[in-house]
Amino acid sequence: MNSSILSYERNVGVWVIGALGDITTTLICGKLAIQHQLASSTGMISETHPFNELDLIPLSSIVFGGIDIKHSCLSEQAEHLYRDSRTISRETLDTIGDDLDQINDQISIVPELACKENSSVKRSLSSLTTKIRTLIRTFADSNNLNHVIVINLSSAEPKVNLSQAHDSIERFAALIENNETDLITPSILYAYAAFMENCSFIEFTPNTSVELPALQDLAKKRKLLYAGSDGKTGETLLKTALAPMFANRNLKVLSWEGTNMLGNNDGKTLDIPANKQKKLENKGNVLHDILGYEPHSGVSINYVPSLGDWKTAWDLIHFEGFLNVKMSMQFTWQGCDSILAAPLILDMIRFNDFAWRNKEFGVMHQLSSFFKNPISTRVMAFEAQFELLRSYAEKHLASKQSKNNIANT
Amino acid sequence: MNSSILSYERNVGVWVIGALGDITTTLICGKLAIQHQLASSTGMISETHPFNELDLIPLSSIVFGGIDIKHSCLSEQAEHLYRDSRTISRETLDTIGDDLDQINDQISIVPELACKENSSVKRSLSSLTTKIRTLIRTFADSNNLNHVIVINLSSAEPKVNLSQAHDSIERFAALIENNETDLITPSILYAYAAFMENCSFIEFTPNTSVELPALQDLAKKRKLLYAGSDGKTGETLLKTALAPMFANRNLKVLSWEGTNMLGNNDGKTLDIPANKQKKLENKGNVLHDILGYEPHSGVSINYVPSLGDWKTAWDLIHFEGFLNVKMSMQFTWQGCDSILAAPLILDMIRFNDFAWRNKEFGVMHQLSSFFKNPISTRVMAFEAQFELLRSYAEKHLASKQSKNNIANT
Amino acid sequence: MNSSILSYERNVGVWVIGALGDITTTLICGKLAIQHQLASSTGMISETHPFNELDLIPLSSIVFGGIDIKHSCLSEQAEHLYRDSRTISRETLDTIGDDLDQINDQISIVPELACKENSSVKRSLSSLTTKIRTLIRTFADSNNLNHVIVINLSSAEPKVNLSQAHDSIERFAALIENNETDLITPSILYAYAAFMENCSFIEFTPNTSVELPALQDLAKKRKLLYAGSDGKTGETLLKTALAPMFANRNLKVLSWEGTNMLGNNDGKTLDIPANKQKKLENKGNVLHDILGYEPHSGVSINYVPSLGDWKTAWDLIHFEGFLNVKMSMQFTWQGCDSILAAPLILDMIRFNDFAWRNKEFGVMHQLSSFFKNPISTRVMAFEAQFELLRSYAEKHLASKQSKNNIANT
Amino acid sequence: MNSSILSYERNVGVWVIGALGDITTTLICGKLAIQHQLASSTGMISETHPFNELDLIPLSSIVFGGIDIKHSCLSEQAEHLYRDSRTISRETLDTIGDDLDQINDQISIVPELACKENSSVKRSLSSLTTKIRTLIRTFADSNNLNHVIVINLSSAEPKVNLSQAHDSIERFAALIENNETDLITPSILYAYAAFMENCSFIEFTPNTSVELPALQDLAKKRKLLYAGSDGKTGETLLKTALAPMFANRNLKVLSWEGTNMLGNNDGKTLDIPANKQKKLENKGNVLHDILGYEPHSGVSINYVPSLGDWKTAWDLIHFEGFLNVKMSMQFTWQGCDSILAAPLILDMIRFNDFAWRNKEFGVMHQLSSFFKNPISTRVMAFEAQFELLRSYAEKHLASKQSKNNIANT
Repeated sequence: MNSSILSYERNVGVWVIGALGDITTTLICGKLAIQHQLASSTGMISETHPFNELDLIPLSSIVFGGIDIKHSCLSEQAEHLYRDSRTISRETLDTIGDDLDQINDQISIVPELACKENSSVKRSLSSLTTKIRTLIRTFADSNNLNHVIVINLSSAEPKVNLSQAHDSIERFAALIENNETDLITPSILYAYAAFMENCSFIEFTPNTSVELPALQDLAKKRKLLYAGSDGKTGETLLKTALAPMFANRNLKVLSWEGTNMLGNNDGKTLDIPANKQKKLENKGNVLHDILGYEPHSGVSINYVPSLGDWKTAWDLIHFEGFLNVKMSMQFTWQGCDSILAAPLILDMIRFNDFAWRNKEFGVMHQLSSFFKNPISTRVMAFEAQFELLRSYAEKHLASKQSKNNIANT
Repeated sequence: MNSSILSYERNVGVWVIGALGDITTTLICGKLAIQHQLASSTGMISETHPFNELDLIPLSSIVFGGIDIKHSCLSEQAEHLYRDSRTISRETLDTIGDDLDQINDQISIVPELACKENSSVKRSLSSLTTKIRTLIRTFADSNNLNHVIVINLSSAEPKVNLSQAHDSIERFAALIENNETDLITPSILYAYAAFMENCSFIEFTPNTSVELPALQDLAKKRKLLYAGSDGKTGETLLKTALAPMFANRNLKVLSWEGTNMLGNNDGKTLDIPANKQKKLENKGNVLHDILGYEPHSGVSINYVPSLGDWKTAWDLIHFEGFLNVKMSMQFTWQGCDSILAAPLILDMIRFNDFAWRNKEFGVMHQLSSFFKNPISTRVMAFEAQFELLRSYAEKHLASKQSKNNIANT
Repeated sequence: MNSSILSYERNVGVWVIGALGDITTTLICGKLAIQHQLASSTGMISETHPFNELDLIPLSSIVFGGIDIKHSCLSEQAEHLYRDSRTISRETLDTIGDDLDQINDQISIVPELACKENSSVKRSLSSLTTKIRTLIRTFADSNNLNHVIVINLSSAEPKVNLSQAHDSIERFAALIENNETDLITPSILYAYAAFMENCSFIEFTPNTSVELPALQDLAKKRKLLYAGSDGKTGETLLKTALAPMFANRNLKVLSWEGTNMLGNNDGKTLDIPANKQKKLENKGNVLHDILGYEPHSGVSINYVPSLGDWKTAWDLIHFEGFLNVKMSMQFTWQGCDSILAAPLILDMIRFNDFAWRNKEFGVMHQLSSFFKNPISTRVMAFEAQFELLRSYAEKHLASKQSKNNIANT
Repeated sequence: MNSSILSYERNVGVWVIGALGDITTTLICGKLAIQHQLASSTGMISETHPFNELDLIPLSSIVFGGIDIKHSCLSEQAEHLYRDSRTISRETLDTIGDDLDQINDQISIVPELACKENSSVKRSLSSLTTKIRTLIRTFADSNNLNHVIVINLSSAEPKVNLSQAHDSIERFAALIENNETDLITPSILYAYAAFMENCSFIEFTPNTSVELPALQDLAKKRKLLYAGSDGKTGETLLKTALAPMFANRNLKVLSWEGTNMLGNNDGKTLDIPANKQKKLENKGNVLHDILGYEPHSGVSINYVPSLGDWKTAWDLIHFEGFLNVKMSMQFTWQGCDSILAAPLILDMIRFNDFAWRNKEFGVMHQLSSFFKNPISTRVMAFEAQFELLRSYAEKHLASKQSKNNIANT
C-alpha cells in the first residue's frame, strides 16, 4: 500500500463523535502506523481486490477532528491501549506522538453532551444543536474541507421511545424547538446537526439516529449520504456468517445462545440494562431474517473488567437434523473490539467519499455488511451483504472501464 | 411432505456400494420414517423453497439395492444404530421392520470386493467388473427400472498413484484387462461398471473414482451424469462457511488447526494412515482456494471408539487483524456423521433424477456444495457453491413457468 | 455388585419430596436397573473402595415412598425420560414396569404444598405439618420401617428472609402456630415434620431448611441426622475441583464467569429470578472460600428448552500468572443433571443409614463433597471434602478391624 | 515481598542448562522485575502461606550462571520475548538491562553439547564431562558459592534406550570411558557432572537423567539432592487436577483426548517424533495412576508457529455415569509456557536450598507437584502431591516452633 505516498489534491474531513474512545484512538493510531509503514493494512477490505482498483482516497488525505465528553487527550488514550490492551507497540507510539498531538487539537471536549439518565441537561436542545453545528463548521473551515463525514463512535444510549413526531422533518424540528429532551438523544442531535451542515453521517453505535424517517427525509432532500447502524465486529458477524449454512442445509436451529464478555468502556456502559436493550435487539434479530423462523435465542452481555478490550464471546447452537436428531456446535471468539472495528471505519470513510464524489445520495446499501442492523434492508446473511459491496464496486469498475475505452477510441 | 401419498408412475433405482454401512442404514430408515410420518424431513434441502417447486421424485418412488462386503443385514444394522448411536427410535424400528427386510433382499454380500492392503484378491479385475455389472443389471431388470443411480458410500481406500493410464478410456480398459491391481481400486471399478451399465454415479467417499479423466470421458461419451467427491458434512462444511468471512474482512488467517475425533467404522478405517491421506488432502485444500493463500493448517483424524458415530471436531483459527494484532476463534462441532450425511444422499438422488429426466449429462456442478472436493470446480466457499444449486433451480423454474405461460396462451 | 442378592433382614425407608421429578425417577429406575443387572453401578461412590468394605445396606433393602404436587405417576415420568433425555432404555422400562407401579403406590399427590408466589395457601401451616407427619408415619408403619430418611428433591423456592425467630425451636414453633406463611416455606415445613417424626433429613435443593439453627437444634435434641444443602453435580463440582489448582499454584483468578444452560423443569423454575437467587449464591460462594479472595465472578442460569435434562455449562477463567501476565482457561460441561444427581442420593441413603446404625447424630460432615453449600463447614475444595468421607470410612474400617481382632483373640 | 531488601549473608548459585531459552530468560527477568517492584510475585507458591514462614532464601541471594548451545545473549532473548510474546514490558527491559548483561557474563556458549541426531560429536564423552565440570567449578569459585543447583531447562532429546549399564554407577562410569554415545545423552552427562561437583540437580525437561538408578545412587552416596522430571505447567497440570474428581465420583472416563498446540522452540523440537516420545509418555501415564484403569487416551503435540510461546491445549473427556449414560467435558487452556514454568523454578531453587541447609538428601518428594513424572512416587493427583509440600513445610514449621519454645524457656 502506498497511499501515503500518493499526492492527492483533495482532503476529506472526518469528524468523530467519541473522538477519544478506544475505537477512534485505534483507528487514528492504525492509520498513522500504516502511513509510517509500521503496520500492514490487514483488516481493511478497501485494500483488497477489486476494491483497491476503485479511485479510493489515500489514507493520507483523511483529516480527523471530533468531539468527546471526557477530559483526556489522544496520546493519553493511546498510552492506555498500549498498556492495557497491548495492541499498539511502544515503537508506534514513539513514532506517531507528534501526529497524535496535532490531531488532538481538532478535538473538542464538551461534557454537557453526555447522555446520563438523570443528568440535568444544562443547555437547551437548540443551543446544543447550534453548538454542534458550529463545531463541525469550524472544523471544515479551518481545514479547508469541502466534504465532512460525521461518524458516531460514542457510547450506547438508552433506547428512545419512537413517536410519530420522529417521522416527519417538520414535527422533528418542533421537538428540538420545544426542548423535548425525552424524545431526542445526543445521537439524534448529532445526526441532525450533521445533515444541517451537509455532512455525510455514519451511525456505528446501536443508538437511534439515522434510522428515524425524519432524518432520512432530511438527508434525501439535501442529497446527503448516510449508513448505519451498529457495527458488526464479533459475535453477530459470526452469526450472520454461520446461520446461512444451517438454513442452506435445512438444519433446524432449536436454540442459539450467545454470551458476550468484555471489560472496556463499552462493556461498562452496556452493563446498564437500559443501554443494553437496543444492542441486544440488533444481535437477536439477525437470526429470524436468515433462518425464516425464530429459534430460542438468548444473548447476554456481561461486564468482565479484567478482559479489557479483549471480548470473549461463547455461542451454543443446538440444532436438529435428519430423523430429528439433536446435535450441537459451540464457538468461542476472542477478539479485540477496537482492532476489529477500526479498519471498518477507515473502509467506510473511503467508500463514503467515493460515493459522494460520484454524486450518490441516500442510504449506502453497499455498506450493509458492516452493520448488525443495516438500514433499509432485510439482507442479513454476511456473504449476501458483502455481495452488495462487491457488485457495487464491479459496477463502478465496469463503468470506469467503458469510459476509458471511449476515451481511448 | 406428502411424497409417500403421491402416486408416481415411475421408479428410480439407487444401488449403493456399502449398503449395510451406517450412512445407508440411516438414509433408508430415515426415508421410511418420513414416509410413515414418524420423522420430519429436516436436513433435506430438496424439501425447502425453491427446490420443492421443482418436479422432484417423491421418496416413495426410490427403490434401493446395493452391495456390501460384511455378512449382516439391514435390520441388524438398524438395531446397532438404535442401541449405540440412539439416532433411530424403537418405535421407528418396530414400524419399518418389514420394509427393511424387503430392501435387504436387494443387497448382495460380496466379501471379495473388500479393499485390504495385503489381501490376495481372489478374482481378476475383469471378472469382478463382470460381477458388478451383472449385479447392477439384475437389480435394474428385476425391479423394472430404466434409470439406476450408483452411489459409493463404502469405506476409505488407500490413495491410488495416478498415472497417464488413468487419463484415457482406452488405456484404462487395458489396466483392467491386464489385471493391474495396484492401479485399480474397488471404487474405480464400481464407477467403471456403473458407466458401462449406463448408470449415474455419485462418489460420496474420499476415494478416487470419477475424478479420473478416463472415467469422465466415458460418462460424457455415454451422456451420463456424475458427481463427487467426499461428502461435506462436518468440519469442512464449517470451514467453507467460515473462511469466506475471514477473506471478506481481510483478516489474515495465520493457522487453522483441526482435530476430528470419531469412533465409527469410518474412524476405524481412517485410523490407518494410508486410508486417511486422501481425506486429509480434501479437508486441507479448501482453505487455499477460499483465502487465496496458504495458512499453516493441520488436520488430524483420531479414532476414539467411545464416541461411536458422534464425531467431535475442534478447530482453532488463529488470525491477524488491524495493527497486526493476533486474535483467535475456536469451535467445537458435535454431530452424528450418518445423520448429517444421509439427507444429502436423498437430496442428490432427487436432483440427479431430475437432471437425468431433463437430459443433462456430465458433471453436476449444481451439487458442488455437497462435497469437500467438488469435481471440476475451484468454488470452495459454501455459500457460493450453494448459489450454484439455487440458480440451477431458478433457471429450471423460470423455464417451467414460461412453458406454462405458453401453454396457457 | 451383588447387593440385590444379599438377604438383608432390615429395610430402610426413603421418603422423597418431589417423588415424580426427574432425579427421583432416574434414581428409582437406576436402582431397579442395577438390581436387574441392566446397568452397572457407575456413578455410585459407595460401590468403590474403601466404601464397599463398610457394611452398607444393599440397594434391595431400600423402600421408596414420597410426595409430589403434580398429577402424574412414576411410569409416565420414566417414559418421558426415555423419550426426551434418552437416558433410560426401552429394555429397562419394559423390565421394571411392575416395580415402578408398586413404588408409585407409596407416593401421595398433594398439590396444596406447591410453592407458588401468589397462591392462596388453602390450609394453615399447622394443618399442613400434621398432613406431612401423617403421610410419613403412614409410610413407615405400612412398610414396617423403623428408620425413614426424608430427602428433599423438589423445585427451587424463593429465598426466605431469615429472622431471629428462625434461631430457636420455641420461636420457630410459634411461627407455625401463628401461620406466618411469609417466613415458612414448604421445604422448612418438611424438615420440621421429618424431625418431629424422628427421621433423618437430607436437603438436596438450594432451598432453606436444615440450615436454620432452630431445626438443627431440634435434630440434635432428638439425636437425628441431617445433611445439606444443594447437590453439587456440574459446574460447581468442577469449580471446587479446579479452583484449588489455581490457589496452589498462586495463579491469581481475575474473573471466573459461568454460564449454565438447561431445559428441564429445574431450568424452568430457576428462570424465575426469585427462585434463582439462593442457587446463584451457593455457586458463587465457593470461590472465595477456596481462593481466599473474591475474584470477579458472574454465574448465569438460562432456560434453554431444547436442551432438556442435558445441561451445558461454559466457564471462562481469566487469571494472572508470573510477571502479571494474563492467561485464560475455559471449559464446557455437557452432562445430564438427573444422571449426575441420582447416584449421589443412593450413596447418601447408604451412608446415612450406616451412620444411624452407628448411633451418630447431628450434621453429617462426611457428606460435604456432595453439596454446593455444605452445612457447618467452610471446606469447599472438592478433594478436601472427599477426604472427609474417606477418613470417616477408614476410621470405621479400622474400628471394625480392631473389633474383629478382639473377637478372634 | 521484600526479599530484595533483606540483607542475607549467603548466596546460592543456580547453573542453568539452556540458559538462553525462553524459560530461563523469563525467570531471570521476572526475578529482577520483582526485585525492582515492577511485578508482583504471582505464580510463586513459595511466597504464599505457609511457605513464606519458612526461612527461604530471598530472591536477591540467587546468583545465576549457565550454559547454552546457541550464540545469543540474555538481552537479545528478552527483547524477543517482549516483541513476540508480549510478556515482558518495555519498562522492565529498560530497567533491568544492566543486570541482564552482568548475568550474561556467567553464561558459556558450548555448541558441541547440542543433541542432534546425526551430529558428529566433536569431543569424547569424558572430555565433555570434564568441560562441564570445569564450567560449574569456575562458576562456583568465581562467585564464591558453597552450593550450586544445576537445573536442566534445555530442549527435548530423543528417548534413550535404557540398559542394565544405567543401573549401577560403576558400569555407568564405564559407558562414559568407552564413549558409548548411543547410551549417554547430554542431559545424562550434565546430571553426572553436577553430582561429581557435589551440586543439586533438578530435571525440568522430559529428558532422561536423574531417573537413572546409577545417578540416584551417586547422589545418595554423596548426600546430594535431586528432583524431576518434566515440569507440569499446562495440560497435564489440569489432568492431574481434574482426573481425581472423576475417580472420586466413580464417573468412568471412556476417552481423554488431548491436543497441544504451541509455536515456541519447544514446539519446534517436539515436532520431531523422536523428541516427542518421552513427553507423550509422561503426559499419558498420569491417568492410569489416578483412575486405576486405562481409558482410551491420545495426546498430540502440534507445532503451530503463529502461537509462539502461547500454548493452546484442548482436551475432550468422554465419560460414563449412572445408568451407563455417556457425557462429556472439554476444556481449552491458553497459557504462556514460560510464564507458567518460570516461577516453579524459582520456588524449587528456594525449596532446594532450604533442604540443603537442613542437611536433607536424596529425591525431594515434596516437589512432586511440580512434575509430570515425579521420580520415585506414584502419587499423581495434583492435590495429593501438593499435600506433600504442605505437610513438609508444616513439619519444619512445627520443629522451628518447638525449638523457639525451648529457647524461650
